Amino acid sequence: MDYNARSLELHEKKKGKLEVCSKVPVTCREDLSTAYTPGVAEPCRKIAANEADVYRYTAKGNLVAVVSDGSAVLGLGNIGPKAAIPVMEGKSVLFKAFANVDAFPICLDTQDTEEIIKAVKQIAPVFGGINLEDISAPRCFEIERRLKEELDIPVFHDDQHGTAIVVCAGLLNALKLVGKPFNQAKVVINGAGSAGISICKLLMQFGIGDVVLVDLKGILAKGEEWMNPAQASMAEVTNKEGIKGDLALAMKGCDVFVGVSAPNVVNAEMVASMAKDAVVFAMANPTPEIMPDEAKRGGARVIATGRSDFPNQINNVLVFPGIFRGALDVQATDITEEMKCAAAKAIASIVSDDELSEDYIIPNPFDARVSVAVAKAVADEAIAAGINKKENCYE
Amino acid sequence: MDYNARSLELHEKKKGKLEVCSKVPVTCREDLSTAYTPGVAEPCRKIAANEADVYRYTAKGNLVAVVSDGSAVLGLGNIGPKAAIPVMEGKSVLFKAFANVDAFPICLDTQDTEEIIKAVKQIAPVFGGINLEDISAPRCFEIERRLKEELDIPVFHDDQHGTAIVVCAGLLNALKLVGKPFNQAKVVINGAGSAGISICKLLMQFGIGDVVLVDLKGILAKGEEWMNPAQASMAEVTNKEGIKGDLALAMKGCDVFVGVSAPNVVNAEMVASMAKDAVVFAMANPTPEIMPDEAKRGGARVIATGRSDFPNQINNVLVFPGIFRGALDVQATDITEEMKCAAAKAIASIVSDDELSEDYIIPNPFDARVSVAVAKAVADEAIAAGINKKENCYE
Repeated sequence: MDYNARSLELHEKKKGKLEVCSKVPVTCREDLSTAYTPGVAEPCRKIAANEADVYRYTAKGNLVAVVSDGSAVLGLGNIGPKAAIPVMEGKSVLFKAFANVDAFPICLDTQDTEEIIKAVKQIAPVFGGINLEDISAPRCFEIERRLKEELDIPVFHDDQHGTAIVVCAGLLNALKLVGKPFNQAKVVINGAGSAGISICKLLMQFGIGDVVLVDLKGILAKGEEWMNPAQASMAEVTNKEGIKGDLALAMKGCDVFVGVSAPNVVNAEMVASMAKDAVVFAMANPTPEIMPDEAKRGGARVIATGRSDFPNQINNVLVFPGIFRGALDVQATDITEEMKCAAAKAIASIVSDDELSEDYIIPNPFDARVSVAVAKAVADEAIAAGINKKENCYE
Repeated sequence: MDYNARSLELHEKKKGKLEVCSKVPVTCREDLSTAYTPGVAEPCRKIAANEADVYRYTAKGNLVAVVSDGSAVLGLGNIGPKAAIPVMEGKSVLFKAFANVDAFPICLDTQDTEEIIKAVKQIAPVFGGINLEDISAPRCFEIERRLKEELDIPVFHDDQHGTAIVVCAGLLNALKLVGKPFNQAKVVINGAGSAGISICKLLMQFGIGDVVLVDLKGILAKGEEWMNPAQASMAEVTNKEGIKGDLALAMKGCDVFVGVSAPNVVNAEMVASMAKDAVVFAMANPTPEIMPDEAKRGGARVIATGRSDFPNQINNVLVFPGIFRGALDVQATDITEEMKCAAAKAIASIVSDDELSEDYIIPNPFDARVSVAVAKAVADEAIAAGINKKENCYE
């Protein structure tokens, strides 16, 4: 039985994947009078008197909303909020399993930017963080930007930043392995949507040599008229040599290929045109931009994909549980670029220099050290920036 | 240590009362590929193709949103959405403990009627039912009415209908005990807010003899100018003799007093003025309209309160878990007056004729038979009315 059939069977048998459980007993009248009336009035009074006590007496401090409008779900596209529920439940399950974060799916019956912003702000009181998920570009940029501004809890669009962080973690190790300095490496990113742009921005935060972004219509370069506003602003700060043309041209002589695009758009010849010791991250799912054996035939030295059946799986689950664990633990009010960099370094650091090899540049998704290391790095960074409402709990 | 201190300690130690748990294992790569990508795409596709499959492959069918704006919380008033969280978490805990319903608190950061309606509709995709809670009158009437109309899942304002159902259940047994036919009994309800009006309506649905509603300004009667629109429309169908005046006047000669008002507004003399074998439900919390010993001194034969330290506790927990259990089990699209009547009868029927006594007119909140009986009665009634999207699962 393949994973589709197994997944269908599991979802039907269990009637979804989430349940809401009580942390307190309710077996006698005394339990009722402490968990509910009349005793429950006392924590209510405390919070009414001092709003910060909401973190002391409720589940808020460990609760994350997994928010989607169902407009860009996996590779399925705009399937709407109901069809998106299995993904959002799945994400919530991973939050709990990998970092003991309580996450709950909020699938919104609207795809209007302003209405989404308003709805998320209105449901925010019970949540300690907002994870945006599978919302299509360019709306996702505005929605995240505004919510970060207007809410006092961390907001994180995982499709952008989770992907960027895990790619940076992998590249930190891949470039170390092939002995190329980060600030001299030239990276080509195929796919200039929300994930590609976010990867590019984080690579630049890390001081990468140069990035060339490529989309369906070609290389992003100053003066190209087909670019959308987000792409145009990236063209200002990338592609230092100002090359124009297609993906094959972009890849000639580059050190790293990062694909967040479509199946089979790269061939062995294109890889062969890259610089020596080429690094290929082909992350289209389930079929990558180029299969690992073909990339190897083209001469690639380090190859990563999004798949679990090849070495070096680039998987967001290495990121989001630890990011929110750390942010929640110190009640960070935001997730900053510095916190993302710290997360990427923490993930990379799990692979020791002794272990580092072509087939092991990124930890296994089930390596329990990862979320702990990410959480601590993120919390430390929040404290260093002074955006924590609570003291460190890791010492 | 009193219940306030115990409650505070419990809430702080546990950091609230709810957690979100996984029903599926996530311990290996195969688990990941069925609970999450790539397998999760298959249930998404099924739901995209046939929306009704959302009940088959997600948690929706067992999920209830406990929605509040924090405007009328317990006896605490308008304390806002954050201070309301302990109550909504508590309610969710009771849903799980008493009927295995997964409930999640939605505390909205708005008190505008239209915004509340819109927000609830927008978050509805993941939920199988909406329990409105602690929303002040008269907004709660419009919010419930509109949501019932505009959503295809059951919507239930527990403060109104849960209270009405459990009061009717108690009165069915109390009047049986004292040998007075329901259709000849005269009831005085003190407190003409949302709970009082809802009790009145359900008593009328049961064919009660007459009801006189009393509010702070006196008896609701045709022509009184101080009444709000909801009260004015009740005055049209209650108070058949058209009496005007105060609570003391209303109670003279009546068979039943129902208090959903304030502490100590009734004394022994007022009870003594009632008809023989008087029934007194004094449900103000924590201090009732009249203490049981004083009501007894006034000659009351059956006395009920909202408190667990006296006999005959009138407690909504006898109602809402079973109501939603039954409605969810058959995917009822609404909760009708007939379903509420069926629930009241089911609760009353738990007390057998042999057991029925002055001190036992209503089951104990921890009687496990209650939610099962309520669920079955409610589901049967939904099926009889043809508003079930799923077949009965009780046979």
